[in-house]
Amino acid sequence: MVKENRQDYLPGTKLSIVQNEEIFTFSTDAVLLARFTYVPITRGKIIDLCSGSGAIPLLLTERSRVPIDAVELQKPLVEMAQESVQLNHLQEQVNVWQADINELDGHVKWDSYDLVTCNPPYFRTPSASELNDNQRVSVAKHEIYCTLEDIIRVSSRLLKQKGKCALVHRPERLGDLMVLMRQYRLEPKRIQMVHPKAGKDANMVLIEATKDGQPGVTVHHPHIVYNEQNRYTEEFRSVYEHGQST
Amino acid sequence: MVKENRQDYLPGTKLSIVQNEEIFTFSTDAVLLARFTYVPITRGKIIDLCSGSGAIPLLLTERSRVPIDAVELQKPLVEMAQESVQLNHLQEQVNVWQADINELDGHVKWDSYDLVTCNPPYFRTPSASELNDNQRVSVAKHEIYCTLEDIIRVSSRLLKQKGKCALVHRPERLGDLMVLMRQYRLEPKRIQMVHPKAGKDANMVLIEATKDGQPGVTVHHPHIVYNEQNRYTEEFRSVYEHGQST
Repeated sequence: MVKENRQDYLPGTKLSIVQNEEIFTFSTDAVLLARFTYVPITRGKIIDLCSGSGAIPLLLTERSRVPIDAVELQKPLVEMAQESVQLNHLQEQVNVWQADINELDGHVKWDSYDLVTCNPPYFRTPSASELNDNQRVSVAKHEIYCTLEDIIRVSSRLLKQKGKCALVHRPERLGDLMVLMRQYRLEPKRIQMVHPKAGKDANMVLIEATKDGQPGVTVHHPHIVYNEQNRYTEEFRSVYEHGQST
Repeated sequence: MVKENRQDYLPGTKLSIVQNEEIFTFSTDAVLLARFTYVPITRGKIIDLCSGSGAIPLLLTERSRVPIDAVELQKPLVEMAQESVQLNHLQEQVNVWQADINELDGHVKWDSYDLVTCNPPYFRTPSASELNDNQRVSVAKHEIYCTLEDIIRVSSRLLKQKGKCALVHRPERLGDLMVLMRQYRLEPKRIQMVHPKAGKDANMVLIEATKDGQPGVTVHHPHIVYNEQNRYTEEFRSVYEHGQST
């Protein structure tokens, strides 16, 4: 039995998002990335890669008035994202299209974006046993159609000089992130860790790099998601529920 | 007027350390690194580079029974460290000697250590105006006689396969640290950030790499040094004053 699409609110906004839990639902990661990243506000343009149901471009419309492109490989997700864009009357600002990020030649103008965002597939080497039964969830969660290196290489090509690339990933990949970013002229400049609780290891890292930037990283205060009573901390609520940016 | 040497306790221990504030005094950084790092406990050997007044080797004797070498370039610091070793009756375990880390050939056995620690000079490009009037403080604080790349290259040569290298540095250099480490076969495995207060950017990073290790970083809970009343947090006290390791 196929579940029907549903509409949810995006945290800290009045925006609706169309989702389907059998295919893919947006996660905390996307919301935190949209609050963490630098955004051009009135001039320039943004592109979101591996856009899923379009949570990041939708959220970024709350912080920016520039055109936002959103690229997603899977057709059902592209359609849901397009439906969300219409539902929120954002057709003038957000343009969602279906594409493989490794085949963007002819579809985009390289060296032209001010910001690339991406909440990429997280898991590096899916074995047969790890692969999710649901093929669409697998594609969204694993590096099946694009690797981290693909994302960083393509992001760098999309950005103009001094443009920013903001990603959210697992802390395990921090070494790969930093090495690949520098390899592709994206200099890591800002990092924010997310810890599920005080005293616990981080389970998410937000990272922003500048194309051809000078070396020098700022590590912001960490997000601590839950307090000892297993409720959101005040700090986390201000960001997640009230839309405060880092 | 030259100030006389003085004796202080090392936090969280009954160990004394000989210091001279005109030359160099140990810092929080050294203590946190000694609490953060992996240590071989009964078998193997350790070397501390740019050892200053010897705080790290002294502190590590509280966690390990293996031989500890300590290398320092500046003679007055070497002498103070040797005095501290005698004062604490640790001559059997700790061996301090004067050397330039770039000229260790013939003085050490390469590929033999289980752990290299280093609290290196922090500042990359001292200009004439930045240079401290006190030449010894300058050498200890700036990359005058050794660069970060020197430290990482030499650390890698000193370590046996799967040996660990633990450094403390400024977060600004996190990109350089990760890239250089991987370049010299040291795979970053553990990171801990130090923030002066909740809500503030990190001002220190502790990082441990494994020679020829598999990629995959764990980011531990951060240290938050001061609470809102400008006193040490309980978490920080447990580490700094009571010697708890990460």
